[in-house]
Amino acid sequence: MILMSFKDRDVISILDFNKDDLYKLFEVTDKILPYSKSKINLLPDKIMATAFFEPSTRTRLSFETAMRRLGGEVISIVGSEGISLMKGENLHDTVKMLEAYSNIIVIRHKNEGAAKYAAEIASVPIINGGDGRQHHPTQSMLDLYTIYKLKGKIDGLVYGILGDLKYARTANSLILALTKFKPKKIYLISPPLLRLRDDTKMVLKSSGISFEEVNEVNDILSELDILYVTRIQKERFPDIMEYEKVKGSYRITLNMLRENAKDDLKILHPLPKVDEIAHEVDYSKYAAYFLQASYGVPVRMALITLIFGVEDKI
Amino acid sequence: MILMSFKDRDVISILDFNKDDLYKLFEVTDKILPYSKSKINLLPDKIMATAFFEPSTRTRLSFETAMRRLGGEVISIVGSEGISLMKGENLHDTVKMLEAYSNIIVIRHKNEGAAKYAAEIASVPIINGGDGRQHHPTQSMLDLYTIYKLKGKIDGLVYGILGDLKYARTANSLILALTKFKPKKIYLISPPLLRLRDDTKMVLKSSGISFEEVNEVNDILSELDILYVTRIQKERFPDIMEYEKVKGSYRITLNMLRENAKDDLKILHPLPKVDEIAHEVDYSKYAAYFLQASYGVPVRMALITLIFGVEDKI
Amino acid sequence: MILMSFKDRDVISILDFNKDDLYKLFEVTDKILPYSKSKINLLPDKIMATAFFEPSTRTRLSFETAMRRLGGEVISIVGSEGISLMKGENLHDTVKMLEAYSNIIVIRHKNEGAAKYAAEIASVPIINGGDGRQHHPTQSMLDLYTIYKLKGKIDGLVYGILGDLKYARTANSLILALTKFKPKKIYLISPPLLRLRDDTKMVLKSSGISFEEVNEVNDILSELDILYVTRIQKERFPDIMEYEKVKGSYRITLNMLRENAKDDLKILHPLPKVDEIAHEVDYSKYAAYFLQASYGVPVRMALITLIFGVEDKI
Repeated sequence: MILMSFKDRDVISILDFNKDDLYKLFEVTDKILPYSKSKINLLPDKIMATAFFEPSTRTRLSFETAMRRLGGEVISIVGSEGISLMKGENLHDTVKMLEAYSNIIVIRHKNEGAAKYAAEIASVPIINGGDGRQHHPTQSMLDLYTIYKLKGKIDGLVYGILGDLKYARTANSLILALTKFKPKKIYLISPPLLRLRDDTKMVLKSSGISFEEVNEVNDILSELDILYVTRIQKERFPDIMEYEKVKGSYRITLNMLRENAKDDLKILHPLPKVDEIAHEVDYSKYAAYFLQASYGVPVRMALITLIFGVEDKI
Repeated sequence: MILMSFKDRDVISILDFNKDDLYKLFEVTDKILPYSKSKINLLPDKIMATAFFEPSTRTRLSFETAMRRLGGEVISIVGSEGISLMKGENLHDTVKMLEAYSNIIVIRHKNEGAAKYAAEIASVPIINGGDGRQHHPTQSMLDLYTIYKLKGKIDGLVYGILGDLKYARTANSLILALTKFKPKKIYLISPPLLRLRDDTKMVLKSSGISFEEVNEVNDILSELDILYVTRIQKERFPDIMEYEKVKGSYRITLNMLRENAKDDLKILHPLPKVDEIAHEVDYSKYAAYFLQASYGVPVRMALITLIFGVEDKI
Repeated sequence: MILMSFKDRDVISILDFNKDDLYKLFEVTDKILPYSKSKINLLPDKIMATAFFEPSTRTRLSFETAMRRLGGEVISIVGSEGISLMKGENLHDTVKMLEAYSNIIVIRHKNEGAAKYAAEIASVPIINGGDGRQHHPTQSMLDLYTIYKLKGKIDGLVYGILGDLKYARTANSLILALTKFKPKKIYLISPPLLRLRDDTKMVLKSSGISFEEVNEVNDILSELDILYVTRIQKERFPDIMEYEKVKGSYRITLNMLRENAKDDLKILHPLPKVDEIAHEVDYSKYAAYFLQASYGVPVRMALITLIFGVEDKI
C-alpha cells in the first residue's frame, strides 16, 4: 500500500485516506499535542479562510484555534454572511476570491459535493469542514484518534453507532472511516425510520465488515467497546407520536450503563448534544466526548501541518 | 486585609475584589497604559475565547483589542451565533468546548449567574463580561480607574448615579464597587418606577455609605463630583405618557451644567448613549465618557496580565 | 503638481488623489506584491478596526487580509452587529469607541458622506470602504492598478463602463478616478433608466474627457480596450417587463466577444457577479476580473503601508 503524501492535498472525504495515512496523522498529532494549548510557530506567513455556508460554531472555532496555535492567521466568513453569499453570488466566484486572499480554505456547506467542487476551482488546498449528509473527514479523524488513544487500536473492537443514521453526517463519515480498518463488528442502532443511508451501507457491505442493524441499544450494549451517539431530531418524524414512542430508547443513562455496559466502554459524541445522554453520564468513566472534543484542535493542527509539509519542524 | 492574588482567578463580581486588589489593578494599568495603542508581547501563546450570548460590540471589541495588544489571540462566538448556541445546546457543553480551545474565556449572558456557572465548569479562568442585571465587573473597574485618574481618589467624593437603576447592569455594578470605598455620599437619581433594585440596595445599606434616592438631578447637581449617567429606556414604562412626563429630567444639557454644576464635575457614561446627554456636552470640560471608554482597553489589559501572572514583565 | 503625502491621510474619495499619488501607490504595490500571499512584518503593533455598517464580505476580507499580511491585527464589527449599532447609537460615538481601540479605521456605510463625517471625528486615519452611491476609493485604486498592469498605462485607452451607472458605487468611483487621467474615450453603456448620475457626469464633463452614452454594448464593443461590467439589478426597474426587455443586451457572452471585441480587450468586474457575464468567459483571454480581485490585497497593503509611512521598510 503506497502512502499518499499529505503535502498540498485536498481533504474532501475520509475515504480518500488509507490506514497508513491515518496512522501518520495520529503520529504527528501525538507530537503536536503539547502545543495544542499554547503555540508553535510553524506557519507564520499563512492565512486560512474559513467559509461556513452552514453554521457550525464548534467546527469553525476548532479550525481557527488550530491555525492560530500554529502561528497562522484566519479570515472568516461568519454568521449570516455565508447565507447571504450563497444567495447573492455563485460558489465559484466566492472560492476564487478566497483563493486570492488565503493559503488554505476550509469550507462547510449543506450540499453534497460542495467541497469537491471548491477543490476543482481553487489552487490552494481545500479542507471539507462538513458537506452533505456523508462527509466530515476531520471529525472522523478526531473520532478515530480518540478511539486510538483510549483503546490503543481501532481494529478488533465492537462499535455501536447510535442515532440518526440517515441524516447524521458525523455518523456516516465515521462508518466510512471504519471501513479502512478491521472492526470486529459494527452495530447500527436507530429507529427503523432513520436507518443507515444506502450509499454508506454499500461501502460498508463491500468492506466485508460484520454489521447489524438493531432498534434497541440495550439489546447489544453489553457487547460494545465504543458507543458513538448522535442526536435524534424530532423534526425527522412525520408524526410526533412516533418520536415520543422511540425517544426513550435512544437516551443513554448512567443506570443503563451500570447494568449492561462493559467496564471499559467509552462513549463518544460529536457534540453539541441536547438530551440524548443524561447529564450524570458526563462525569462518569464512560464519557469520552469531552476528551474527544479536546482532540479537535491537535488533530486539525497535525492535518494542517502535514498539508503545508512542515511536520519535520515540530 | 489580605491581598488576594489575581493569578488564575475568575472575575465574576466586583464584590469579589477589595480596595487593595483594585489599587493593585490601577497600578498595573498605569504601567501598561503606554502600550494600549501599540503592543506588548506578554501573552504570545495564549488564546482568549469571547462567548457573547448577548450582543455587546463595544465590550467584545474592548476585550479582543486588549488581548491582541498583549500579543495574544482571540476566537469569538459572535453575532447571532451566540443566540443559536443558546437554543441548540446547553451552556455546560459550550463552556467545555471553549475550555478545550482557549486559555481564558470571557462570557456575556443575559441570565444572572451564567458566568459563575461557567467558572464552576471551566478549568481556565472565566471573566464575566456582563451577566444578569447586577454584574459587569470589568466595566466597574474601568469606571473606578477613570474616577481615580480624574480625581486622584475614589473616597470622599459625592456621586450621582442617574438613570435606570432597576435594570442597568453597569449602574448596579458600580454601586456595588463603591461599597468597597468611602464615598461621601451617593445620590440615586431615577424615576420612582426605576429605583435601585433591592439586592443592590441591601449591599449599599450594609456598607454604611450615606445615600439618598431622588427624582430630579437638578435638585442635587450642585453637590456632585461625579455624575454617572445611564440610559432610560422607553420600553420600561407601562404607559408611554409616563415616559414622556419624566424623560426631560433625565437628559443632561450644557445649560443645566453651566447653571448648577461644580466646575470640576465629571460626567461618566458606560456608552452607548442615545440622547440622555446632549451632544453639545460631548466636547465640554464636564464630559469624561470618551476618556472613560479609552480606559476600557488598558484596564482589561492589566486585568488579563494579572490573571496570567505576568505583570512583572511589563 | 505637488505630491500630497499619504502619511496619516484619510482616504475618503478617489478625487482626493492625483495621478502622481496613484502612480506612487502603484509603485509601492509592485514592491509589496511578492508578500501578498505571505507576510511582511511592517505593522506589528497596529490594529485596524473594520466597521461595516453595510455588509460586504469581499471588501472586509480584503482589508483584513491586507492588514494581517502586514503583521497587524484586526478587530471587526461584522454581520448584523453593524446594523444593530446603527439603530442603537449614533455614528459619532461608535467612531469615538473605535478610535480608542484601533490605529486605523475602515468604514463602510450606505449613506453618502459617512466616511467623511467619521474622518472629522476620529484622530486616527479613516479609509472609506465604500459609502453612498459614488465613493469606493480603494476599489478604484485596484481597478486602476489592474489596468496599469494589463496595459502598461491608463491614458489613451477606450473604456466601456457597463451596467447600472445610476446606482453602482464602483462604476461611479472608477469614472471619477479616470478623470485624473487622459482616456481616449469613455463609453457609458446602460439602459436609459440607469444612465450615469448627474453629479458624476458633471465631474466627467469638466474633465474634458470625450464620453458618450450608449444603450447597446455591441454597437461599440469593437472599439474598447477595457470593458468594466457591473450588475444590473432587476429591482431597479419599475416594471419587470422593462427589465426582461433589456437584460439580454447587458449580458456578456463569449460569442459576442469573439465576433466583435479586440483581441486584447480586457474585462473587469468588481465582483460579485451574478449572470451578467457568461461563465464560459471566465477562463477566456478576455477575463481579467479574477486577476483584478487578486490585486485587492496588495493594493490595500500598499495603501496602508503608505498611510503608516513605512514604505521604506519593504
